[in-house]
Amino acid sequence: MISQAVIAVIGAGDCDPATAALAEDLGGQLARYGMTVICGGLGGVMAAVCRGAKAAGGQTIGILPGTEAAAANSWVDIAIVTGMGEARNTILVRTAQAVIAVGGEYGTLSEIAFALKLRVPLIGLQTWELARHNQIIKVFPQAQTPVEAVQWVLKQLPSHQLSSKTDA
Amino acid sequence: MISQAVIAVIGAGDCDPATAALAEDLGGQLARYGMTVICGGLGGVMAAVCRGAKAAGGQTIGILPGTEAAAANSWVDIAIVTGMGEARNTILVRTAQAVIAVGGEYGTLSEIAFALKLRVPLIGLQTWELARHNQIIKVFPQAQTPVEAVQWVLKQLPSHQLSSKTDA
Amino acid sequence: MISQAVIAVIGAGDCDPATAALAEDLGGQLARYGMTVICGGLGGVMAAVCRGAKAAGGQTIGILPGTEAAAANSWVDIAIVTGMGEARNTILVRTAQAVIAVGGEYGTLSEIAFALKLRVPLIGLQTWELARHNQIIKVFPQAQTPVEAVQWVLKQLPSHQLSSKTDA
Amino acid sequence: MISQAVIAVIGAGDCDPATAALAEDLGGQLARYGMTVICGGLGGVMAAVCRGAKAAGGQTIGILPGTEAAAANSWVDIAIVTGMGEARNTILVRTAQAVIAVGGEYGTLSEIAFALKLRVPLIGLQTWELARHNQIIKVFPQAQTPVEAVQWVLKQLPSHQLSSKTDA
Repeated sequence: MISQAVIAVIGAGDCDPATAALAEDLGGQLARYGMTVICGGLGGVMAAVCRGAKAAGGQTIGILPGTEAAAANSWVDIAIVTGMGEARNTILVRTAQAVIAVGGEYGTLSEIAFALKLRVPLIGLQTWELARHNQIIKVFPQAQTPVEAVQWVLKQLPSHQLSSKTDA
Repeated sequence: MISQAVIAVIGAGDCDPATAALAEDLGGQLARYGMTVICGGLGGVMAAVCRGAKAAGGQTIGILPGTEAAAANSWVDIAIVTGMGEARNTILVRTAQAVIAVGGEYGTLSEIAFALKLRVPLIGLQTWELARHNQIIKVFPQAQTPVEAVQWVLKQLPSHQLSSKTDA
Repeated sequence: MISQAVIAVIGAGDCDPATAALAEDLGGQLARYGMTVICGGLGGVMAAVCRGAKAAGGQTIGILPGTEAAAANSWVDIAIVTGMGEARNTILVRTAQAVIAVGGEYGTLSEIAFALKLRVPLIGLQTWELARHNQIIKVFPQAQTPVEAVQWVLKQLPSHQLSSKTDA
Repeated sequence: MISQAVIAVIGAGDCDPATAALAEDLGGQLARYGMTVICGGLGGVMAAVCRGAKAAGGQTIGILPGTEAAAANSWVDIAIVTGMGEARNTILVRTAQAVIAVGGEYGTLSEIAFALKLRVPLIGLQTWELARHNQIIKVFPQAQTPVEAVQWVLKQLPSHQLSSKTDA
């Protein structure tokens, strides 16, 4: 049914050039492994990861919060128009086989929370960490580079998806 | 951004063979015009339209009500997992450039209502009609055949989408 | 847990004075039976039914489509702010023990469809009727008056809710 | 229109007795100030805060994730049945004038994120803290006691709501 893995890349709608470069790199790598990128469909990290994926010949899905497909960035292949605002963040996480959080503001934090809640494999890249009682607690891994994040994601996928990917 | 039209085909999760044949025919025609089919992703009319689209080399999107991608029928390329039950019907309609209703039960009626409400072009094929004060009132067109429905849809699309389609 | 019945009254955000009078009458009757009115929280039929319920000392809930509580009409006691647009129509229907449709446009039609789909008892008052193959088919009852609609609703409620009501 | 403040108390569906005692205390205090408590409607912190509010004569709203009103805890006055799973967390936050997070797991973290995103005043009580680059960063205040949390909430409310409250 689903012939290829769908990986969510989450991050803020505005970001600095260094963060955008990380996201673009991620998009390219995911696409070269044959994985579809799903994101929130807007600007910043979302635009950068789609741009990277399209440059590498990949496929991109944007789950839009608003009511207009025209809000999607120029590298979204399939714009899903939810009209549900932030509630669309749950759809993004539920649809993905793994989630990579890149930098990010509070919307990204909500998606991190949903990935943890719904037990969707999650890795961070210069993103939020969590703490309790003044102690940082590691509840999900943090990668140092896009390569590390993508290699970790590959290990989370069921082997039948992985093999079809590594053939690509 | 969106390089091809996305057309929703809506109908019941269970249907008789004659209705399934209509849906399968629709899926094939839409695919041959280069249009992506979006549907609710489950069985009945949804499975038939996806089967028809895939047999003709098209692309299919299923907007699932539940929490499991595995619920998608075997001909869904991209399964969007909403976990929002019937509320997903609004996403289907918002994402489509036009809607074709084939047969259908009450879920289909809700999608007909949303298409009318959101002013997404809608045509029926052996589906619900509306009445008031014991008088049938025609608020959307009804096609007699899948060909008639698809030709009507083509006329609703913006010309830049239409031209890219008829090239396909 | 839920000590009193919650009844949805659905209808358009704009309506003529005659329809508003029906809705206001309904609101008053439901309140006098101790029932809470739930509606979409905006104007037209929604404002009229809330006004009627408040005048009779009842309680009102508005399930708002937008992101601002201030959009609620002046007779809403509890404004639930969904930010989910039309998808909020499913919440209204799921929360109610019965639904009364008064007049109405396409949003109302979607709520009629959800009530039928989710098997929530539904009665109409000068609202949509359904047809198929050029024949009107009666899938839910139509009342002639607000009294008839409310009496029908009372009969649908579980007896423990009904008895607490008729005491009120 | 809205004559009284609605305050969200968020926390996990399972919690230890000490956390439940904090939530119950919060519920009682909020109710004594005339504020309505809104929560996710289930067990743990949600049940405790409702129990505390009802014992003090307050009003409680539960925004349920599932499809059955019967899932609400016994102290929910108004059960809103969303059928939208975790997406209901956004409704809770949008509807509240302020949010108090008590302990909590990942669902609570998502609600903290939405409160920050949507700029709804938020205070924590033995809940998640946030960090970045191995440094804890304070983006929202943490109270030491229920009294401190409630007093902080009172200061966030518009004065017309505050005055009606302190009269209560």
